[in-house]
Amino acid sequence: MKTGTASFPLGTLALDRNAPESLGTQLYFALRGAILQGTLRPGIRLPASRTLARDIGISRNPVIAAYEQLQAEGYIQGRVGAGSFVSAQLPEHLLQAPTPTTVAAQRRRPPRLSRRGGTMAALRRSYPTGRTAFAPGLPDLAAFPFDLWSRLLARHWRRPTTDMLFNADPAGYRPLRQAIATYLGAARAVRCHADQIVIVSGSQQAIDLIARLLIDPDDRVWLEDPGYLGTRGALLGAGATLVPVPIDDEGMDVAAGRRAAPRARLACVCPSHQYPLGVTMSLSRRLALLEWAHQAQAFILEDDYDSEYRYAGRPLTSLQGLDTQARVIYVGTMSKVMFPGLRLGYLVLPEDLIDPIRALRTHIDGHPSTLAQAALTEFIANGHFAGHIRRMRTLYEARQQILLDHAPSLAAHFTLEPAAAGMHLVAALPPGANDLAICERARQAGIILGPLSRFYHGQPHRQGLLLGYAGFTPHEIRGGLARLQTILATD
Amino acid sequence: MKTGTASFPLGTLALDRNAPESLGTQLYFALRGAILQGTLRPGIRLPASRTLARDIGISRNPVIAAYEQLQAEGYIQGRVGAGSFVSAQLPEHLLQAPTPTTVAAQRRRPPRLSRRGGTMAALRRSYPTGRTAFAPGLPDLAAFPFDLWSRLLARHWRRPTTDMLFNADPAGYRPLRQAIATYLGAARAVRCHADQIVIVSGSQQAIDLIARLLIDPDDRVWLEDPGYLGTRGALLGAGATLVPVPIDDEGMDVAAGRRAAPRARLACVCPSHQYPLGVTMSLSRRLALLEWAHQAQAFILEDDYDSEYRYAGRPLTSLQGLDTQARVIYVGTMSKVMFPGLRLGYLVLPEDLIDPIRALRTHIDGHPSTLAQAALTEFIANGHFAGHIRRMRTLYEARQQILLDHAPSLAAHFTLEPAAAGMHLVAALPPGANDLAICERARQAGIILGPLSRFYHGQPHRQGLLLGYAGFTPHEIRGGLARLQTILATD
Repeated sequence: MKTGTASFPLGTLALDRNAPESLGTQLYFALRGAILQGTLRPGIRLPASRTLARDIGISRNPVIAAYEQLQAEGYIQGRVGAGSFVSAQLPEHLLQAPTPTTVAAQRRRPPRLSRRGGTMAALRRSYPTGRTAFAPGLPDLAAFPFDLWSRLLARHWRRPTTDMLFNADPAGYRPLRQAIATYLGAARAVRCHADQIVIVSGSQQAIDLIARLLIDPDDRVWLEDPGYLGTRGALLGAGATLVPVPIDDEGMDVAAGRRAAPRARLACVCPSHQYPLGVTMSLSRRLALLEWAHQAQAFILEDDYDSEYRYAGRPLTSLQGLDTQARVIYVGTMSKVMFPGLRLGYLVLPEDLIDPIRALRTHIDGHPSTLAQAALTEFIANGHFAGHIRRMRTLYEARQQILLDHAPSLAAHFTLEPAAAGMHLVAALPPGANDLAICERARQAGIILGPLSRFYHGQPHRQGLLLGYAGFTPHEIRGGLARLQTILATD
Repeated sequence: MKTGTASFPLGTLALDRNAPESLGTQLYFALRGAILQGTLRPGIRLPASRTLARDIGISRNPVIAAYEQLQAEGYIQGRVGAGSFVSAQLPEHLLQAPTPTTVAAQRRRPPRLSRRGGTMAALRRSYPTGRTAFAPGLPDLAAFPFDLWSRLLARHWRRPTTDMLFNADPAGYRPLRQAIATYLGAARAVRCHADQIVIVSGSQQAIDLIARLLIDPDDRVWLEDPGYLGTRGALLGAGATLVPVPIDDEGMDVAAGRRAAPRARLACVCPSHQYPLGVTMSLSRRLALLEWAHQAQAFILEDDYDSEYRYAGRPLTSLQGLDTQARVIYVGTMSKVMFPGLRLGYLVLPEDLIDPIRALRTHIDGHPSTLAQAALTEFIANGHFAGHIRRMRTLYEARQQILLDHAPSLAAHFTLEPAAAGMHLVAALPPGANDLAICERARQAGIILGPLSRFYHGQPHRQGLLLGYAGFTPHEIRGGLARLQTILATD
């Protein structure tokens, strides 16, 4: 092995005094790179720190720091009185490794993903998202009491409790669970106590946790057709065999589900307000679904994603409250009534699923962040939550009316019926229409629409357009409709 | 079918004016329960609202509300001029359903969980947790700048940006990713740009996401033995076949891993500071591990969970920064340097795993909560983050010294060596000792210790005690040792 002093022209090292990395760090990387590339071979002696500092025109301290780091990591070895040498221990075959470039240059093939990972990663989103009309599902936040919200956050974090700092309860902050249990009892006739509630990072995580807890690969799961695509993604990730069950005027066709898969393990439904069609499940269907679940020893996941916004009649009570056999798992979200960025939702579990979910979760994400939970508890307990919902209900009802008032100008292209609840309407397109093509043309013109056909799991039975109205001002709604008319007229 | 007026003694309905539920809601549930139990049969006529109100001594409005709700849900039907009747549509076989009681009374057998769900739910936690000495891994928060933190939260939420409200980026808030990339480059020699960073809900979620993305059932995964149990749980949840690889003085024994499973898909390591033993992986082992991953087309998950706290020498740079083949996935957490309740960590991904993880995540939990992200960005960018780490490093180093200074009194029971890094020490027990028994006796005396044997995946090779020191005052440390001495002396 060759030894000697460094033949590498260390004096030409280009260090940048304006770089975010310190001179010592830059020098460390330069020397390490030279060692790994073989420019500085094992056994080579490095210049004394004083000499190198003078040669490259920096002070001695960064040089000493770089040498110490290289020595600590085993790249160089110091011998007392003899200076520093490139380590002779470095595996010969690892020298001359290429310097990092882009991964494209490093890898000829795409990385191998797991089957579930590949399946989930390949699932398309339902439609483009954004902040312009008529993106479905967006709340209006102009009137959200952010002043109050920021004060609550500040107050709770100025002197946080031990629970907020070290909380290891995988079900979440108990006072929040208590506040949600009380709210759900009064507003949704959900029958539960605080221990049945598990705070999660939005309803998507709720569905994912339940799928992982209950579903083995090839287990059958009923889901609404058309239906919410986030449910599909989580179920496919758990390896479920999907059993799409048609939706009619009474909601999920339970008899059709029984014919297709009588022994399914789980049924996922939105009984209060089906997504995307907006149907409310009839009482007889609810009772039939509960009876099936009891007989089949299956569970029902009730996704109550926007039941807060009902404009006509009284809100229907939850399926969970009707369940006497502990078969219903209720899922709620704060995304629609607070704001989507919060990512906070909750599960209401049958009692014998509480411990399994708590244990499962410790291996998935530990526990929910405490950051929002104390402030949100106070927001609910002091009535701000219910007050905001009431204000938004009035606002959204008026916005639906504006959409309906201006829809006749588009009667040649689609029909729009009022809905008793929710944040969007579904425009029915005539036979032969292509909703995907219309949505794509609209997207190019800066308008976001949801294509109904995309929500079908198999062959779409209907073509239509989802028009969200909740998050847009009357001006935006009118402007959006005018542009939509132009788009449809040039068809 | 029998018809007639209600024979049910409605006048005896017990309503509670002090209950959290309104009188109308209570009446609704009482009548619904009577209908579902068959006490009020289909076709029965209910009393007029005015009559019932008088009979039970409440005002008429709650009665009207309850009737409206029952009618909206199909339990009763109104006929103009004839009053309200229990619906004749109710499926006969669903009446007389039992009233909800506890699930124990409803279900004879425990619910069937998925195999993965059952496996994950059955995994034991490593040891009892709590807030008393010597619980490992707890930071000290007496000096955390909560005043500043609460001001930052308040400022960002008083006038939130659109990104904070509607952020749908599954990788997280981009300015935070930029701040973390800069920090990691300077402090850990991680080589990455902001797009490679994905904000997650703590390192546990990072490991779970990677396991789901890469691991198919029965794929082999190397993991450190002894090692962090959260890694084991996430890998078992993905169906991995675990390949425990022994730890020696140089860290993971790569040659042993190659013999046991040369074609493993993933290796999980803590090269900076092995958990729980505290070993730093040598350079030659790092290079050997990288070479294996390159040859086997495997990935390496580098869990850099507490590298911020190194007291002797300089912190070793990351394995990620040494990787030229885009094989290393780096995981960091804010739990140790901010506070555990925050649940915020990050992944640094090879470029060709960025899009798959982003897509996968939309089906798992959507995106990380925006609540902390803007405030944390400013906390890092303004130097508070680095400043807090520096202060805690000094504090924890002193606390380790206090533990070592007082350990000689326990020399008859165990030996304690100083460590160059971390938040706990491992006390080596003599042959024949039983660390689980000692930890249990300590727990009964109010002292928390981690039993080393519990961290082995198979047969434990050593017995020892993990003593966390970072989160406890000198007084607590001395007091804990005194009690521990009493416990061990009575053995």
